[in-house]
Amino acid sequence: MKREIYDEDHEAFRGSVKEFLDRSVVPHVEQHASEKALPREFWLEAGKQGFLGLEIPETYGGSEAGDYRFNAVLLEELAKVNAALPACVGIHADITAPYIVQLCNEEQRQRWLPGVASGETLLAIGMTEPSGGSDLAGLKSTAVRDGDDWVVNGSKTFITNGYSADLVITAVRTSPEKKARGITLFALPATGEGFSRGRKLDKVGQDEADTSELNFSNLRVTDDDIVGELDNGFIHMMQNLPQERLGCAIANVAHAKQILAETLVYAKERKAFGQGIGSFQHNKFLLAELVTQIDVTQAFMDQCIVAHAKGELTAVDAAKAKWWTSQVQNDVLDHCVQLYGGYGYMNEYRVARAWRDARVSKIWAGSNEIMKELIGRDLGL
Amino acid sequence: MKREIYDEDHEAFRGSVKEFLDRSVVPHVEQHASEKALPREFWLEAGKQGFLGLEIPETYGGSEAGDYRFNAVLLEELAKVNAALPACVGIHADITAPYIVQLCNEEQRQRWLPGVASGETLLAIGMTEPSGGSDLAGLKSTAVRDGDDWVVNGSKTFITNGYSADLVITAVRTSPEKKARGITLFALPATGEGFSRGRKLDKVGQDEADTSELNFSNLRVTDDDIVGELDNGFIHMMQNLPQERLGCAIANVAHAKQILAETLVYAKERKAFGQGIGSFQHNKFLLAELVTQIDVTQAFMDQCIVAHAKGELTAVDAAKAKWWTSQVQNDVLDHCVQLYGGYGYMNEYRVARAWRDARVSKIWAGSNEIMKELIGRDLGL
Amino acid sequence: MKREIYDEDHEAFRGSVKEFLDRSVVPHVEQHASEKALPREFWLEAGKQGFLGLEIPETYGGSEAGDYRFNAVLLEELAKVNAALPACVGIHADITAPYIVQLCNEEQRQRWLPGVASGETLLAIGMTEPSGGSDLAGLKSTAVRDGDDWVVNGSKTFITNGYSADLVITAVRTSPEKKARGITLFALPATGEGFSRGRKLDKVGQDEADTSELNFSNLRVTDDDIVGELDNGFIHMMQNLPQERLGCAIANVAHAKQILAETLVYAKERKAFGQGIGSFQHNKFLLAELVTQIDVTQAFMDQCIVAHAKGELTAVDAAKAKWWTSQVQNDVLDHCVQLYGGYGYMNEYRVARAWRDARVSKIWAGSNEIMKELIGRDLGL
Amino acid sequence: MKREIYDEDHEAFRGSVKEFLDRSVVPHVEQHASEKALPREFWLEAGKQGFLGLEIPETYGGSEAGDYRFNAVLLEELAKVNAALPACVGIHADITAPYIVQLCNEEQRQRWLPGVASGETLLAIGMTEPSGGSDLAGLKSTAVRDGDDWVVNGSKTFITNGYSADLVITAVRTSPEKKARGITLFALPATGEGFSRGRKLDKVGQDEADTSELNFSNLRVTDDDIVGELDNGFIHMMQNLPQERLGCAIANVAHAKQILAETLVYAKERKAFGQGIGSFQHNKFLLAELVTQIDVTQAFMDQCIVAHAKGELTAVDAAKAKWWTSQVQNDVLDHCVQLYGGYGYMNEYRVARAWRDARVSKIWAGSNEIMKELIGRDLGL
Repeated sequence: MKREIYDEDHEAFRGSVKEFLDRSVVPHVEQHASEKALPREFWLEAGKQGFLGLEIPETYGGSEAGDYRFNAVLLEELAKVNAALPACVGIHADITAPYIVQLCNEEQRQRWLPGVASGETLLAIGMTEPSGGSDLAGLKSTAVRDGDDWVVNGSKTFITNGYSADLVITAVRTSPEKKARGITLFALPATGEGFSRGRKLDKVGQDEADTSELNFSNLRVTDDDIVGELDNGFIHMMQNLPQERLGCAIANVAHAKQILAETLVYAKERKAFGQGIGSFQHNKFLLAELVTQIDVTQAFMDQCIVAHAKGELTAVDAAKAKWWTSQVQNDVLDHCVQLYGGYGYMNEYRVARAWRDARVSKIWAGSNEIMKELIGRDLGL
Repeated sequence: MKREIYDEDHEAFRGSVKEFLDRSVVPHVEQHASEKALPREFWLEAGKQGFLGLEIPETYGGSEAGDYRFNAVLLEELAKVNAALPACVGIHADITAPYIVQLCNEEQRQRWLPGVASGETLLAIGMTEPSGGSDLAGLKSTAVRDGDDWVVNGSKTFITNGYSADLVITAVRTSPEKKARGITLFALPATGEGFSRGRKLDKVGQDEADTSELNFSNLRVTDDDIVGELDNGFIHMMQNLPQERLGCAIANVAHAKQILAETLVYAKERKAFGQGIGSFQHNKFLLAELVTQIDVTQAFMDQCIVAHAKGELTAVDAAKAKWWTSQVQNDVLDHCVQLYGGYGYMNEYRVARAWRDARVSKIWAGSNEIMKELIGRDLGL
Repeated sequence: MKREIYDEDHEAFRGSVKEFLDRSVVPHVEQHASEKALPREFWLEAGKQGFLGLEIPETYGGSEAGDYRFNAVLLEELAKVNAALPACVGIHADITAPYIVQLCNEEQRQRWLPGVASGETLLAIGMTEPSGGSDLAGLKSTAVRDGDDWVVNGSKTFITNGYSADLVITAVRTSPEKKARGITLFALPATGEGFSRGRKLDKVGQDEADTSELNFSNLRVTDDDIVGELDNGFIHMMQNLPQERLGCAIANVAHAKQILAETLVYAKERKAFGQGIGSFQHNKFLLAELVTQIDVTQAFMDQCIVAHAKGELTAVDAAKAKWWTSQVQNDVLDHCVQLYGGYGYMNEYRVARAWRDARVSKIWAGSNEIMKELIGRDLGL
Repeated sequence: MKREIYDEDHEAFRGSVKEFLDRSVVPHVEQHASEKALPREFWLEAGKQGFLGLEIPETYGGSEAGDYRFNAVLLEELAKVNAALPACVGIHADITAPYIVQLCNEEQRQRWLPGVASGETLLAIGMTEPSGGSDLAGLKSTAVRDGDDWVVNGSKTFITNGYSADLVITAVRTSPEKKARGITLFALPATGEGFSRGRKLDKVGQDEADTSELNFSNLRVTDDDIVGELDNGFIHMMQNLPQERLGCAIANVAHAKQILAETLVYAKERKAFGQGIGSFQHNKFLLAELVTQIDVTQAFMDQCIVAHAKGELTAVDAAKAKWWTSQVQNDVLDHCVQLYGGYGYMNEYRVARAWRDARVSKIWAGSNEIMKELIGRDLGL
């Protein structure tokens, strides 16, 4: 089914993203994986090309498209390379930058956004804590008033871009007695005294992403580092989660679709028992099912993208997109691995890495169980 | 997710369909089921309202909308009442009538179409044979030249509207030696000598549909009864199958969606262990999944409907829509039955009938296996 | 995999059951379905053959085998004919009779058991109420003391054998204030004044079973009609549910296995596109999967049967057997229907009826959700 | 459900295996993973304990139990530690050693078996080739007569123990014109000139296993290195595959069961939203399902183990056990990962590694698709 949501401008933008990726990224993906991080050159180059500033007004160095479909195109092309790229870029440019744009005052915007747009200031967002998982309302990190300062203590984990980030928008408890209503977002500078990072986490997949633990020990910040309103951090996060989940969903589908396309080629070329393995009826039907699953899912995603570009995507529809696409992605990729046979189990094959990479998508950004809880509540249950 | 494909005209049309159904159909559905057929009054009334002529030019009494979205609206509303209605009306107005409109000459159109539009001439289409199932190319009914006549012999089975139909577009073999290339479509009049019907078939569901076997014993017709070109019937059928499959798919989703909506209401009202059963987390998550599944599927269907309204829907995308929606429908309804508990097993509950009705959708109009074969071939496998 | 749990005696007994079924039952199954009940002749003949007394001591006319494997053999052979037979016979002989044998005094046993063994006194058990579903502790029927009498009021529904039963062991509330601890079992005679039955319920399947509603309006019984201890009915039911669930599970597997065997034959004989449909790889793999699923499940069932014969089957293992086998049965039969194509949707085909019959097995005897709740609790969750 | 197939001797043996593992293996599993191999000390120690000689007569240093249940106990305990251990030990002791015991002459047995039993001669088996996957009959490696020698050329891949093996029973083509009937097994010494190994393969999981490619370039062997009969290698492999597949299946279940048990503990301890995550109904029902799935599967496996101990396990039942258990293992472990949330994606958690480790079990030892082909053929399809 031909997609109808993009026009010439979007496709021209896609072309420039592709060119950038082919030139500056694809040749280095092995290095990214072995170093367990995207190097700063990647970020600077992406910044120079204008790929980090889609959410940032021009006055701060961005290109603020004001049309989420450009974000979608960027995420799709990144996801075609591997699943870690849209995750890392998305956290920086799509998920965290908007907090500054939408919630910060002029001084803060001027202080932070130009570096964000250029790639000099790498962003991360600190929500999850070791003890807490998806239970954001129960977080334990604290910021305590001390004169004009706030003294931050606590830990965050599973932080994408965590090892390299320069600035981390971090949710901490400022009013201990008020559960969800006592959380504030601070922009914590990685250079601050008392800010330390654990090692890069050894993950099942997404080796290219420098996921880390972060620890704050008497880290001092001030009111000028508060993002948004005091004690209103939970609401701020809730308002930004739909775009995060939509971004994940876009990448889920684009990633699965790309690997499926490659698997289809492989299934035609690879011979067994004297014929292309894809032509065995079992595999033929399977591939027909997988392609259908992707097409159906893409149609829903395109509706979501258009709705979000118009500012109409609900949190519930974003939740649907997130859990459904991550489930589909994992199902599709598991079958792709099987079609590759023993090679599907070898890390030198993209399909193997893709399979490992994809698994986290059912867990992060609010686990699929949390998504179903949200949808269920919306149904009045 | 709000649907975007219909405008005010479509919704006005939907209103008139709804009014017709509420007034003239819903009060009689029990009677339809017990009589195992829609009565002729139904057809005449539907004809009078203009619901049978969406594919028929005005000159022959139709309203030829030239916009498939009206067909889609009609099928959706019919499906909300029960699954047999869109099947029966679809066979008559959406699937069989276009054969006459597209393939027949002026004399034939004038002979047949006014009655089709008014509901006086009920149509059926005879493809499947007892021995053949989905293997259309292998059919065994024959028409043999005898002077100016053709003498038709053979049997068809699983013919929707078969017991009541006045005219049956029937595929028979005219060139025994040419497999698929030796099939011709004839419009066989039920009044013809040698045309007989078996009993109304006792089906698992869709009691309201008068599915029957048809038998032809030395039934004489002439060249004037040929629909389309001699020996070209297989191609004619292939060209019309996408609209048939799309129609099935539209009804599948609308039917499942309606029952799911009713089940959601029930799950809130029905109490067990002191709470609404839908609020148990297992059921809550399940309902969240089912609603997501329907929303995702509806998005794909809306793309298909728009594409078909523009004349761009491929046979392969129709095949995807057909198998996917029938699978989704069956999965959703099976869970709905379970949510009703023991009542879900009682025929007086709509959910029980819906579950029985839906099962055939994975089998008819080309079984889901045939759909996957078509998609697989399109993938080059 | 060869089954190892039966010896020569069991197989001899199987032979006699088979002979009875072939002679006295199979020729009449159409009649059973159209009359929506098993006729009294069936029960009397089964009684004469000794098939109703496996749980009843010889002194009361039974054959008390003291080896549950005979019960298992009986249920398996009944299930091969259709799913309603083991349900009806099971309720009478396997599920309800033990209540009398285990819980009643000598006078009661002498009053009731000879008729149970001979088939003259048909048993049913009344647990489920219209408002309550699986929530036994919340039942609303009451028995109130009035002098030496108890006055029973209330309704039961989904009662297997309900339309024909002569004696119904019925759970009613005797102590309104004590939830589960205020329920007593009474043996209610169908001849009692105030005992009435609704119509035979119109079910999705199992037409042969005369499932009914029962209504009690000032029905008077006495202490002599109490089964077991006053206010202890809930415990009595809990203790007997494992055998009920095991019996269901045995029938589930035997039924599915039989239909699968028949489907395999059909899949070899039925030709499409010039070959047996079972030899298409998709179907071949599918049949391989279904056969595996049955074999794996049978192995578990055989462990359960042996454990129960030794008196060691836990309620939790019975719950596992019940939900798993009913899920497997439904999955297997749904695929069998598909393999029959259009014929699978015709009630004259056994596979169609089997599919309809099987659906209730996920609902009754404690829904599969209740089973998972029980297992989850046993895991300490 | 209590398992009944082991007696005191088996449990005593289990105790000694456990003690060995706790003492000599568990403390070193991290090292095994980082070195991508089990060290020779492991093999020598296992040999000393008698764990490598269950298939080897005492006269050659083994303990030939003659009761496969000991093999099963060993595999189960190994699998509880991780999935690579039963794979590596199984290939050596359970799968390859029997070729020598059953097919070799006295001289060969004396030459090879003592080292096999002691762990000094590590075995591997070379079937799969880079071009061939599961298509054993199509293999391309050759052995060509040259005087009294055979000159071996070709490659094998995915060879478990491949990097460390001392002796590799290798299938090569000796009669080019005879497909399956032209294959011979040779015991190729790793010290031979022309025997080389590729690097240790970088796999998705099972890091502890030194899976490698093997290359043979004009490697010279003689008739004395032939295992079994000339040109009869295909039959020899077919006869030994059931034990290989059974061993895989035993390990699949034991591995999944162990991780599920650990996950259950975690699900009770880990809190979210103020309660143990396992007590949320969704998770509770899920865990109930997984435990049932394992119990049902274990019952089938126990039947298979007993049948094989009696020499009665068919190749088809081994195929059923292999595909079913690997599917169950993967399904169960995927849910376990999800229950761990973000931690399930961290390699330091056993569940993460187990998930990666398990994936290959659907591919190796004959892919699950091959298993279904075998079962389907056995059904006459």
